[in-house]
This record gives sequence, C-alpha cells and structure tokens, in this order.
Amino acid sequence: MKINVHFSNLHFDELYFTGKTTVVIDVLRASTVIVTALSNGAREIIPVGTVDFAMKVSGNAFSGQTLLCGERNTKKIEGFVLGNSPLEFTSELVGGKSIIHYTTNGSKSIVKAKFSENLFVACFNNLPAIAKHLVALDKDVDIVCAGSNGGFNLEDAVCAGKISAEILQLNEDVEVTDSTRASMALNKTFGKTLLKMLKETEHGKLLIENGFADDLKECAQLGNRDIIPFFLSGSIKKLEVKEN
Amino acid sequence: MKINVHFSNLHFDELYFTGKTTVVIDVLRASTVIVTALSNGAREIIPVGTVDFAMKVSGNAFSGQTLLCGERNTKKIEGFVLGNSPLEFTSELVGGKSIIHYTTNGSKSIVKAKFSENLFVACFNNLPAIAKHLVALDKDVDIVCAGSNGGFNLEDAVCAGKISAEILQLNEDVEVTDSTRASMALNKTFGKTLLKMLKETEHGKLLIENGFADDLKECAQLGNRDIIPFFLSGSIKKLEVKEN
Repeated sequence: MKINVHFSNLHFDELYFTGKTTVVIDVLRASTVIVTALSNGAREIIPVGTVDFAMKVSGNAFSGQTLLCGERNTKKIEGFVLGNSPLEFTSELVGGKSIIHYTTNGSKSIVKAKFSENLFVACFNNLPAIAKHLVALDKDVDIVCAGSNGGFNLEDAVCAGKISAEILQLNEDVEVTDSTRASMALNKTFGKTLLKMLKETEHGKLLIENGFADDLKECAQLGNRDIIPFFLSGSIKKLEVKEN
Repeated sequence: MKINVHFSNLHFDELYFTGKTTVVIDVLRASTVIVTALSNGAREIIPVGTVDFAMKVSGNAFSGQTLLCGERNTKKIEGFVLGNSPLEFTSELVGGKSIIHYTTNGSKSIVKAKFSENLFVACFNNLPAIAKHLVALDKDVDIVCAGSNGGFNLEDAVCAGKISAEILQLNEDVEVTDSTRASMALNKTFGKTLLKMLKETEHGKLLIENGFADDLKECAQLGNRDIIPFFLSGSIKKLEVKEN
C-alpha cells in the first residue's frame, strides 16, 4: 500500500485517476457538507463542476426531490436553495433529497477524479472511518487536497496528513511519498487543536468575516460521523460497509 | 512586506508575475547550477522552456561563446555540452561563457516568471545572500518552488521555508500566507541537516541511483556562495549589490 498526497488538483488530468483509489478533501467546507448531508439522510449528492451544469441538471430533475446547493466566494449562489454551510443541511431539509452541489474547489476536484475505481470524500468529521476503510481496502491511495483555486491550503493538507498518520498507525507497512511525509509533518505542527488551526487559516478567517464562524466548529469535529461518502456514476452515496 | 510561497508553478499564468518580486527555487539542481556557474565566472545563463528553443537559440549564437546545457530525467541531453550537475560547471569550462540552460522544472519556472519586476534564483548555496537582499528590497515577494513536473517537492519547500524564516529573523514585520507558514514548518521538521534531507527525498534518491550522489553534497551547502542571480531581458546575471 502506498499513500500519495496531492496539494492541488492541477498537475494531472482526469485520466490520471483511471483505476485509482482516490480520496478528495475539502475541509472548508464541501467535504464536511457532503458528510453532514449524507449523515442527515440525503439520498445522494451530485457534484458538478460548473454553475451552468448545476442549473442544467436541476432543470432535468424531478422537482421537489432535488435541492440546488453551493457557493461562490463562500456565499450562496443566487437562485440556489442552500449555500455551503454544513449547518444548513439538516434532516428536515435534506432527508431523502438529491443534492446538486457546486463549490469553488471541492466539487470540481471530485468531478476531476470521477474516473477513479474508488472515489471517497473525507473531512475531519469522518476521518477515522475513512482511514479504517482504506486500510481494509489495502490499495494504493491518492489523497487529493482540493486546496484554494488550484493552490495550496493548510486545512486540507493537515487533514491529508492526519489520514496518512492514522493509516500508518493501523498498518506499518505503508509506502509514503515526499508530499505525504510533508502532510504528516504539517499535521504534527498544526493538527493538534483543529478549531484553532482552522481559525488561523486564510479560508477560516474569510469564513469568520462572512459570518460563518459556527461552521468552523462543525468542520473541526474529529470523528463524529461514521460515514464514507462514495462516488459512483455521477453521484455520491453512503457506502454500506460490510462488517466481517 | 508579505511572503507568499507557491509549491507549484501551475496555478497561475505568466501575467500573474507582472510587476512582482519573485524568487524561483529548484534546489535539485537547476538553481544550484545557476548559482555555481555565475560564481565560476559564467557571463550569463539563458533559461529556456523547451529543448527546441534551446537548439534555436544555440544556432543563432556566436559559436565558442555559448554552451548548451541541461537535462531530461536527470541526464544530459544528446548533443548538449553539459548536463545539469553543478560539479560540471567549473571556471575552466564556463568562465566568460553564455550558458543556454534547459531543465525539466527549474528553467521552465524561471521562464514562466519572466514578467516579474525583480526575478531572482535561489538555492541553499546562496540562501543567506538572497534573504538579506529581499529584506533590503522590502517588497512583497512570491517564492516559487519549481517542484517536480508541476507537483510538490520537499527540498524546494524546505528551501522556501528557510528563506522565509531567515527573512522573519531580519524583519519581524512580515506578513505570511498559509503556504509560507507551512513551508516554515517543513523547514523546522526537515531542514536541520540538509544533506540527510536531500538524500531522503524522491528526487535525491533518483539522483543517487543515476550516479549523482556528489551533487547532493554540493546542493546541501548552506550559504557558501554570495551570489544573487537576477533575470533581466531573457538572461540571468550576477546582481551587483551596492553596499550602503
């Protein structure tokens, strides 16, 4: 088993992912929204790479059963039902619904990785569940940080490092790349108190400025959701893990 | 003054650099070659982004005064005079010469940043000189890690972190981005013994495999060259710093 962390989704094209096992991370906030929505009973999340495509999918969908959700520059897009705050995705609102989800970094990264053989979505909330599942799967894994506009962001790198460290605790026989070693070092330096770390990141500060301070608390929760979001044929559903 | 580190050169185009002060790092080995060649009396380095362009420039140049140098997959390119090992760039061979320089990551990053108002080249060898000069210049600086094929590499990230840390020691009033904080953390974790760090990186291991172990020793030297390579109008020369 080998873990390879990517701090950006730009240096490969869609075909890079063919046959791979991939984990996409966008801590603030797309991955956390996906994990929360599935936890609260959403039927599926349909990640889309452009607002236009979100509108098109939404137009074709059976009305009442789909919710158009997402953000641009942290804020809800005009005409969308929900933004990208995990706190909005309550059981009352999302239970049984298909969620069409557009965000600046996260959904685009998921769409880019769509040819993966196994494609999971991770954040701090479901980190232990993801790590445990990857160890059971025992395949080489590419962890993709959605980052910020194609560049590095600290919270995704720390989350990638924490997943890698957790995997190495469960299975010592794992090969790591330089970027994986770097992410684990960043987790060691910044990953002890997650809420403090999130508050001090550029994206965290921007969210606080825009009134989303409570989102950071939600996104900083470690292991409170036992959910593995799994992408298949255009939509993300809860993976049903068979216990041995 | 603000320092912004980039772990890849992919998430911006050439126009991003217009008017900026930029430092390009490719520790293994393009930056180290450039610093060594200028130290050993080369007249200038002409970085090129493609082998074809290297051939074209070389064809137009006055023969005897130019040397075609560079590598692909760590090895000298057929028809080139020198490869990309700093140890090849001796005073006897490069004194007074114009060097046309093509490498997989470093030269491409320099060419991409060509519209910068100030464009410098850094490695561990000239790190203190660069840091001191940037503090004196007192402008916002973008530090670009050439990385590996558009992706992250550890040695460039550690070098960027060490430059940033050195600047912060000289000037406490410096703003840093998340990526700069990350690079400084990586320097703290991996940057204590540079040769050991280089030997353990993916690119370092590949160089050792290909017979370039001695290059790592050269690239790991901290502050043995008091040279500031400065790009202007297509070529890199030694910056003459006026002492106050």
